[in-house]
Amino acid sequence: MSNFDDTIAAIATAPGEGGVAIVRVSGPNALKIADSVFRGPSPKPSERSTHVIIHGHVVDTDGDEIDEVLLLIMRSPQSYTVEDVIEFQGHGGNVAAKRILRRVLDAGTRMAEPGEFTKRAFLNGRIDLVQAEAVLDLVHAVSDHAAAAAIEQLEGKLSKKFNDIYDSLVNSASDLEATFDFSEDELPTTTMPDLESRLKEVHRQVAHLISTWDDGQILREGALVVISGKPNVGKSTMMNSLLGRDRAIVSNVPGTTRDIIEERFVLQGIPIRLVDTAGLRETQCAVEQEGVRRARAHIQKANLHLYLVDASQPIDEGDHVQLAKLKSEKCVVVLNKIDLGNAVRPDQIQDMTVVRTCMVKGDGVDAVCREMVRKLSSGINMGIPPHATISERHRRLLVEAHAEIKTATNLLIDQPETNVVLVADRLRCAIELIGMVTGKVYHDELLASIFSRFCVGK
Amino acid sequence: MSNFDDTIAAIATAPGEGGVAIVRVSGPNALKIADSVFRGPSPKPSERSTHVIIHGHVVDTDGDEIDEVLLLIMRSPQSYTVEDVIEFQGHGGNVAAKRILRRVLDAGTRMAEPGEFTKRAFLNGRIDLVQAEAVLDLVHAVSDHAAAAAIEQLEGKLSKKFNDIYDSLVNSASDLEATFDFSEDELPTTTMPDLESRLKEVHRQVAHLISTWDDGQILREGALVVISGKPNVGKSTMMNSLLGRDRAIVSNVPGTTRDIIEERFVLQGIPIRLVDTAGLRETQCAVEQEGVRRARAHIQKANLHLYLVDASQPIDEGDHVQLAKLKSEKCVVVLNKIDLGNAVRPDQIQDMTVVRTCMVKGDGVDAVCREMVRKLSSGINMGIPPHATISERHRRLLVEAHAEIKTATNLLIDQPETNVVLVADRLRCAIELIGMVTGKVYHDELLASIFSRFCVGK
Repeated sequence: MSNFDDTIAAIATAPGEGGVAIVRVSGPNALKIADSVFRGPSPKPSERSTHVIIHGHVVDTDGDEIDEVLLLIMRSPQSYTVEDVIEFQGHGGNVAAKRILRRVLDAGTRMAEPGEFTKRAFLNGRIDLVQAEAVLDLVHAVSDHAAAAAIEQLEGKLSKKFNDIYDSLVNSASDLEATFDFSEDELPTTTMPDLESRLKEVHRQVAHLISTWDDGQILREGALVVISGKPNVGKSTMMNSLLGRDRAIVSNVPGTTRDIIEERFVLQGIPIRLVDTAGLRETQCAVEQEGVRRARAHIQKANLHLYLVDASQPIDEGDHVQLAKLKSEKCVVVLNKIDLGNAVRPDQIQDMTVVRTCMVKGDGVDAVCREMVRKLSSGINMGIPPHATISERHRRLLVEAHAEIKTATNLLIDQPETNVVLVADRLRCAIELIGMVTGKVYHDELLASIFSRFCVGK
Repeated sequence: MSNFDDTIAAIATAPGEGGVAIVRVSGPNALKIADSVFRGPSPKPSERSTHVIIHGHVVDTDGDEIDEVLLLIMRSPQSYTVEDVIEFQGHGGNVAAKRILRRVLDAGTRMAEPGEFTKRAFLNGRIDLVQAEAVLDLVHAVSDHAAAAAIEQLEGKLSKKFNDIYDSLVNSASDLEATFDFSEDELPTTTMPDLESRLKEVHRQVAHLISTWDDGQILREGALVVISGKPNVGKSTMMNSLLGRDRAIVSNVPGTTRDIIEERFVLQGIPIRLVDTAGLRETQCAVEQEGVRRARAHIQKANLHLYLVDASQPIDEGDHVQLAKLKSEKCVVVLNKIDLGNAVRPDQIQDMTVVRTCMVKGDGVDAVCREMVRKLSSGINMGIPPHATISERHRRLLVEAHAEIKTATNLLIDQPETNVVLVADRLRCAIELIGMVTGKVYHDELLASIFSRFCVGK
């Protein structure tokens, strides 16, 4: 059942202190390895049926016990990799699993590369590339929503959308290519208009899938929330308040923060990358200038802005310039230091969500959190069950395919008779691009770039 | 088979990024829980036999998939806890396993306390306390030797030694108590001398077990290696050289290091706690005085001393005083800064192992490591297979039992006829102490103090 003739092994559980650790072995010799390193009740592992658990010991070549383990046997093709798979469930910690792994490697297996078990599952035809990527998304998920979306993707719901598009394109291309053998007069008059409407439909489907990327980005990477504002308005105090701990160094000296300080946390189910930036001001200090440059770069990519204003000072031209750049739906304006006075008139900040705070006392932090959740939720719709969403890799391929289909459609509308071969060429390109999403079409570099992001043992 | 009527659950693998995570459930309702949260092929889990693996999904109450899992069934009494145990092997990472755990808790299980699975294995009679402690030692093991020793202990080899002592004491006490009903004249003349020799033998066995503590301490905690010497002889440079990185701040200013700096590493299989101390000198600085006080406290507990001397300066009275306190078998004298001169005569450091180094150039570091391994190995004998060794808890109980047996023996030698009841009392105390080692005798605080050191999920 397998395309591989070597047997691989790795520790499949996270490193560190835990009750249990797993050493996973996959390949044609997996059961022979079990026979040679495992001592337990008869019959020996290679004579057992599939999906059984045996209690016993991993022993060294002298028969000395290395660990007390459960041996799991999953025979081909009913396994993660489609190959014969055995697992040793032994004691956790930093040493026990390594001792088992070393024994298994000595017995004739090769250390698995990152993601190699999942790569074999793909190359042996059990899952497609989109599902393989879902495994990675699930392991990396930072929130419930992200995990739920990854499970949908793992179950093949996203793959089905790509496959539907792929099939539509293949059918359209085949129908188009079938017309090559006929003269214009011989074709039914409905053929070309029919093809045209089918291409428009698939074009719409691709566009819709591309539009899900924003949501997916937030689920995978977290929403980028950038705290900005002039120096010394309380940005670092705000960062610390939201995180509930002293992350950023706070002082009264304007320009205290220079580096971009980034921390992740989950706010009511929404994973957030919170970034504290250098205060935006003209400065002669080279270090601070670099800080301001980096702050501006982050501000452009933000999913949400928290723009801080010192409420005790009149709002100035610099604030107006910055606020004018921000979109209302992506911004919360925080009037801080309300304990020191109120020099900002509400009409000076029009069409913006405004929260009044006194960060040093913690007043208003809850209101800021509420507004953050409200603004971010409207984008990713946390109320309904999460959907599998496309990744950056999918988006790039889809955008290219989208352009090819668009060109093909335009060529078809323009001059169906003369352009028919060109249209077919463009469709074949689009088919290849969609095929690369699911792995119907792949090359070594594509696989390397996907699986190298996995941990060893998955 | 079980003494418990509630069902517990926990994540059994280490937290963090990994391919696989395990949620473990144990108790009378384990299989019912599996029926309600798991969707897979028929028959349902509660109708399956033991030690089988089923592929399927953990689903929520709406039937939506929470994770793709392998379900492991291990029926009572053939399980870790002796109870019905099920395990869900799902995707690793920070979220996936928590989602499964939450579902399992919602379905009617209780979050397990630290070590509760192992505690149940003990209370249900599968393992004794010494074996339970071996599980903890194995998870915490920092070296191969420590892991191998823990496995021996887990297999019951150390328990057997305690049980032999326990049985000897019980037999002696019974035989002694049987004499209560007889007058002196009725007893065979060999009875008391025979008892006396049996008590001396068990006294010897207890003393021998106590003597294994040093080795065990090194295996469990690591050998404490203390770097000491006068200020500015190169102690921090030595620390950094041995660790292979810049851990301690190095400067030419005497008194740079004040805090105790401790780092762990494994040197040729020997786990080592390397401690850099404040230079030993009289000083007016309160911070440095505290540093010197702490350094002296560590020096007393050390398994090995690295005493540094500046080879370019004549050895002085302070060095002589310190060196006189150190035992030759526990000390390596390092003559550092040999590039700056050689003002120390070999006869000034008699009967000590001496290594000449130039730490700033890295010269002699290998020689220091060799001597460290040689001195430490002579204690723990790394050449032969490691043995299960007693812990600090065992040692304290053994020392008390040792004293009781000693008293009993002396009373018996002194006046067998009149002291017989007192001797029996002392033996019963010794029996209880040894019983507390293996858990034949236990109380709630004892169990709490042992199992609270476990991770949740073990």
